[in-house]
Amino acid sequence: MTTVRQLPLQEIKELSLSVLSRAGYGQAHAQAISDMLYTCQIDDCQSHGLFRLLMCEQTMRAGKIDGHVPPHILNEDTAIVRADARGGMSLLALEQALPTLVEKTRRYGIAAMAINNCFHFSALWPEVERLSSAGLAGLAMVPSHSWVAPAGGTRGSLGTNPIAFSWPRAGKDPFTFDFATSGFARGQIELYKRAGKPLPEGVAIDKDGKPTTDPQAALDGAMLTFGGYKGSALSIMIELMAGPLIDDLTSLESMEFAEGAGGAPYHGEIILAFDPQHFSAGRTAENGARAERLFADIIDQGARLPSQRRFAARARNLQRGYVEIPQALYDDLTALSGA
Amino acid sequence: MTTVRQLPLQEIKELSLSVLSRAGYGQAHAQAISDMLYTCQIDDCQSHGLFRLLMCEQTMRAGKIDGHVPPHILNEDTAIVRADARGGMSLLALEQALPTLVEKTRRYGIAAMAINNCFHFSALWPEVERLSSAGLAGLAMVPSHSWVAPAGGTRGSLGTNPIAFSWPRAGKDPFTFDFATSGFARGQIELYKRAGKPLPEGVAIDKDGKPTTDPQAALDGAMLTFGGYKGSALSIMIELMAGPLIDDLTSLESMEFAEGAGGAPYHGEIILAFDPQHFSAGRTAENGARAERLFADIIDQGARLPSQRRFAARARNLQRGYVEIPQALYDDLTALSGA
Repeated sequence: MTTVRQLPLQEIKELSLSVLSRAGYGQAHAQAISDMLYTCQIDDCQSHGLFRLLMCEQTMRAGKIDGHVPPHILNEDTAIVRADARGGMSLLALEQALPTLVEKTRRYGIAAMAINNCFHFSALWPEVERLSSAGLAGLAMVPSHSWVAPAGGTRGSLGTNPIAFSWPRAGKDPFTFDFATSGFARGQIELYKRAGKPLPEGVAIDKDGKPTTDPQAALDGAMLTFGGYKGSALSIMIELMAGPLIDDLTSLESMEFAEGAGGAPYHGEIILAFDPQHFSAGRTAENGARAERLFADIIDQGARLPSQRRFAARARNLQRGYVEIPQALYDDLTALSGA
Repeated sequence: MTTVRQLPLQEIKELSLSVLSRAGYGQAHAQAISDMLYTCQIDDCQSHGLFRLLMCEQTMRAGKIDGHVPPHILNEDTAIVRADARGGMSLLALEQALPTLVEKTRRYGIAAMAINNCFHFSALWPEVERLSSAGLAGLAMVPSHSWVAPAGGTRGSLGTNPIAFSWPRAGKDPFTFDFATSGFARGQIELYKRAGKPLPEGVAIDKDGKPTTDPQAALDGAMLTFGGYKGSALSIMIELMAGPLIDDLTSLESMEFAEGAGGAPYHGEIILAFDPQHFSAGRTAENGARAERLFADIIDQGARLPSQRRFAARARNLQRGYVEIPQALYDDLTALSGA
């Protein structure tokens, strides 16, 4: 059984800032990263909360990231804002370009942000939820490393390529999803390996391209996409939209760039934003009600909207004033913070 | 065995125009519909080629469509063009608004078309391929009728909700996909029923929400989405983007509107377009080459890019100068054309 530690909310950012600062991240980057980890941790999103500090530290040790570089925001006379992270972590670039994305979306009805030349480790849902909290719909996509085989293929070509979407709901938590287009997350396969359990069928192939349920063979081979050829097509779209479209790397190229070093992958990201006010010709309230009727019909039949568990965790944690993290993680992070 | 008829290419549009005109479609609508059917038929896309004339005729008989109404194109000072079909078939509205979508995309880098108040039967790939043939990337989504249950649900709430994407490739057929987010197309279930074959597992539920492999029980119940909760989340996004976002109907509302009548469903459609020239800061050729390297890696391992079969069919049919359609369909259409 995992021993759990209760961490008061105010200590989440303090612990993050200490670890990041000691690892070599400057104040502005450490702050942007800590804000993201806080957002994930209060939602009990353990995989993308404080746990990711280990990856941030490892990324710095791998030696390619710049922990101090200021992003360069290019605001041209189009509906696109380019956020050049210039070899730093993505989050400061995102934070600095987000107000421009919101302005452009309110001006043009639809707009896009391309984050370039960034190291990337974060969940996408907090990014699209920043848009939905501004009353906009948001759609985000990123590549990763080429661990995933295309449908009918025998080796990794595609990333785990997550896609996230958020839709604003008046007076309610937004409708948000954020999922990898691989059938399994890579971390899930590691967990099966540690537990000595076989994988379900249809999740992975071995290095010869044959279906396997052995976690180690899967790690040596490739993962499969969710949903067969449809998930595979979607994953290729994400490669194109968040890679060549925006002048940045595919998952294959990102994997080559890493040269086997661990840590966060280096590539780009695309975020699209939509202003319901423009798209619905001013009838935002009526159309919001139309969307609510769909959500109600889904919930009424016992199905769950995505993210409902996360929103419940957030309410609980904010109310009680602390989050729970594994004691072992707390100890590792305390050691890294130099405390 | 199906008897097949060879139909010379020039007769595809002639036959379409006769059937549509006799059914009650005015010249402009009949022309836009025929162009679409031709595009599908020369690619051997039988489900969305001449076969759809039966649905066009049935839609007119159902009595709600206007076969003559001119669309109204609203070109505001944003990156959105609204094509109000005003109760007609979608395709004339699409055709008239497409040049504006292309202009706006070249101007702003990203732009969107909302088609409203339209009857809709067509495949989406010809629409996004019109964008890729103009050097743009395109993404299209539509709802349909609420035949599909959300993940964890017991009844239809969602449409079959197709999504299509096309990416321009210099000197080559584009990368294009177009798939329903339901696991099966509704027509596929009809085919299983006619053949007396059980459905695969995981495709449908019966009217009590229980998994079924019986085609009739599936038709009385609901279909499932592809890819479990991920496909379901994506399908809900399509409802929102092509429905409430653009001031138009969800699949639930479209089903209610139809009042049990057959024919094409009535709802909206959204098409997004992206200009690689703007997004890639002018480095379109280098980034096109980056995308080609990904495609080559996929093909090299024996996997197929989506639409390859369709492009091969097009090349063959254009070369030999005719398409093959079932003789029975030809006879039905000839009867409808009054010839």
